[in-house]
Amino acid sequence: MSVPLLSVTRRTRRTPFTDRVNASSVKAYTVYNHMLLPTVFGSVEDDYHHLKRNVQVWDVSCERQIEIRGPDAGRLIQMLTPRDLGSMTMGQCLYTPMVDETGGMLNDPVTLKLAEDRYWVSVADSDLLFWIKGLAYGLRLEIDVDEPDVSPLAIQGPKADDLVARVFGEEVRDIRFFRYAMLPFEGRHLVVARSGYSKQGGFEIYVDGSDLGEPLWDALFAAGEDLDVRPGCPNLIERIEARLLSYGNDMTRENTPHECGLGRFCQTQQAIGCVGRDALLRVAVEGPVRQIRSLSINGDALTPCSGIWPVFGGGKRVGRVTSSAWSPDFNTNVAIGMIRMTHWDDGTTVEVETPDGMRNATVHEESYI
Amino acid sequence: MSVPLLSVTRRTRRTPFTDRVNASSVKAYTVYNHMLLPTVFGSVEDDYHHLKRNVQVWDVSCERQIEIRGPDAGRLIQMLTPRDLGSMTMGQCLYTPMVDETGGMLNDPVTLKLAEDRYWVSVADSDLLFWIKGLAYGLRLEIDVDEPDVSPLAIQGPKADDLVARVFGEEVRDIRFFRYAMLPFEGRHLVVARSGYSKQGGFEIYVDGSDLGEPLWDALFAAGEDLDVRPGCPNLIERIEARLLSYGNDMTRENTPHECGLGRFCQTQQAIGCVGRDALLRVAVEGPVRQIRSLSINGDALTPCSGIWPVFGGGKRVGRVTSSAWSPDFNTNVAIGMIRMTHWDDGTTVEVETPDGMRNATVHEESYI
Repeated sequence: MSVPLLSVTRRTRRTPFTDRVNASSVKAYTVYNHMLLPTVFGSVEDDYHHLKRNVQVWDVSCERQIEIRGPDAGRLIQMLTPRDLGSMTMGQCLYTPMVDETGGMLNDPVTLKLAEDRYWVSVADSDLLFWIKGLAYGLRLEIDVDEPDVSPLAIQGPKADDLVARVFGEEVRDIRFFRYAMLPFEGRHLVVARSGYSKQGGFEIYVDGSDLGEPLWDALFAAGEDLDVRPGCPNLIERIEARLLSYGNDMTRENTPHECGLGRFCQTQQAIGCVGRDALLRVAVEGPVRQIRSLSINGDALTPCSGIWPVFGGGKRVGRVTSSAWSPDFNTNVAIGMIRMTHWDDGTTVEVETPDGMRNATVHEESYI
Repeated sequence: MSVPLLSVTRRTRRTPFTDRVNASSVKAYTVYNHMLLPTVFGSVEDDYHHLKRNVQVWDVSCERQIEIRGPDAGRLIQMLTPRDLGSMTMGQCLYTPMVDETGGMLNDPVTLKLAEDRYWVSVADSDLLFWIKGLAYGLRLEIDVDEPDVSPLAIQGPKADDLVARVFGEEVRDIRFFRYAMLPFEGRHLVVARSGYSKQGGFEIYVDGSDLGEPLWDALFAAGEDLDVRPGCPNLIERIEARLLSYGNDMTRENTPHECGLGRFCQTQQAIGCVGRDALLRVAVEGPVRQIRSLSINGDALTPCSGIWPVFGGGKRVGRVTSSAWSPDFNTNVAIGMIRMTHWDDGTTVEVETPDGMRNATVHEESYI
């Protein structure tokens, strides 16, 4: 079969923007944190070109928030991640790999500090809420943990500043990367963060209250008509070019942050109290034996990767590709995979076993964009 | 838009049977525990009629197993559920509501006791693994918790005994309801349990090792040709008629087991050590103020429920419908919902706000089948 249909029920939750998304040109969805996430509007390639030139509004409500409140909130947050949060201030939103006791990735959320005793953890596709609730119960921490009615809406693309400034005011231009400001919309203050799952720049607006969803969506589209604003979504091609990892695709509980190339977000020595510290201190010293790399896969356009493609070097298995797409801008199949250290140097030639046959490929230390 | 397409990636995991399912007449999927779950083959109605008369093979690999091993396994299992597991024996598989510290449902798995210090928890759609790992870490329990390579394959329908007997031997007929036997297939022993997500009878075979998936699938189809065996899946209509609840659809973390009509699976007084015991002891005494009911909704066939339909009685909000489908056998729209005690008596007339307008409906204490 080719692309299957998706059965939608209450369990694949709607978002505050679903009616607007459905009324537009949406073609396909995935399910992410038990919620609908659009994946294609015009076509993956049309969306890609438009994203790199204009501005898009993305329903990323599926980046659910876990709110952690209470006297032990700061202690718990540091338990969750090997990133040192000792000097984290309000107004910051930090990318925080979160691991289990063996150092295996459980999620790679963005953590927002809202107050000394209040955080939001904006999660990738796993029920991190359950891990946090389990820890809190087991350790008798004085915190409340819950999923509030907060739905991020991303504004991405080179014209994002212009669009968001028209709705939230010129001060949005001063928001630094991975910082947020509290800005008013219809009399309520929303977190407006300079962040997002693309390399094209932009913002994520944490819509605090479902009732604000459609008014904000409509305000953005009304304000951006001359900017050719369109509904969009995380773009498969662009995110692979940018080597933006996807939890569940490019990394799982099998992998340490170091394998995922996220070592720079780990200050395990300083992150006293973090779960998995013993395991990660060792990995930090010895280094991983395999690591995330970008690859270019030769030949014509492949069917996008929907599983694991084995990678071979000198006839031996040396890794796997977990995401791939045809890149119009680079005129090759771009890919993300985990490669053993024997073959991870820049420019190494390997072979990838794809559903369309064996293909030669080149390993890249850096991302494409 | 009508039914959207589903984008399939590694994150929406394939199963050992996906190639076989795709090679058949599958029409649609959902994503369940980050894994593909087929939802329609011929049509929901065709599948329904066939299930009630013949036998189907269902890829329910998405019922992932959580394996709990170690000296504290028994203690932990009792912590997870208000069902009294004190007398649970090997060979049993028990339906076990699992709750958080407030008594809110986290999952409604089937728990299998494989040995005194080894259990499988066969989960509905939430990362219960994360809850168990968090508890185990916080409480420093001596257990290992993991997701093994075990994928259930369900054989459901009135001819299930005949089909399974042809592949696993006549002794399958002696397996009692919610019991299992270890039976050989290709030299390995598999859990064969009399259970499944339909009221038509049948088995779930816990395929322990992905390599056995296609051989077992093929053996069942070869053995059942004259029984008109077909690929199938949990059927929306049949499961609503049978009032088989779906976690995420009919109940969430908001609900206690008592609200879900699962009070008979709670022996909270005896379940010493279970998380949420304090909260549930109170609920057990006072009873819930709303509870799961079946409903029949008048008029012609409605679009199946994909969200929450408010229920009104005497002009006031008295509940919600969370699942519905047109039943050919009962010639009405069958539904499942949560109804306040003022209106939950058998035969009470209420109104349901559907996308196709307000409809009269009747509340039923018992399920249809």
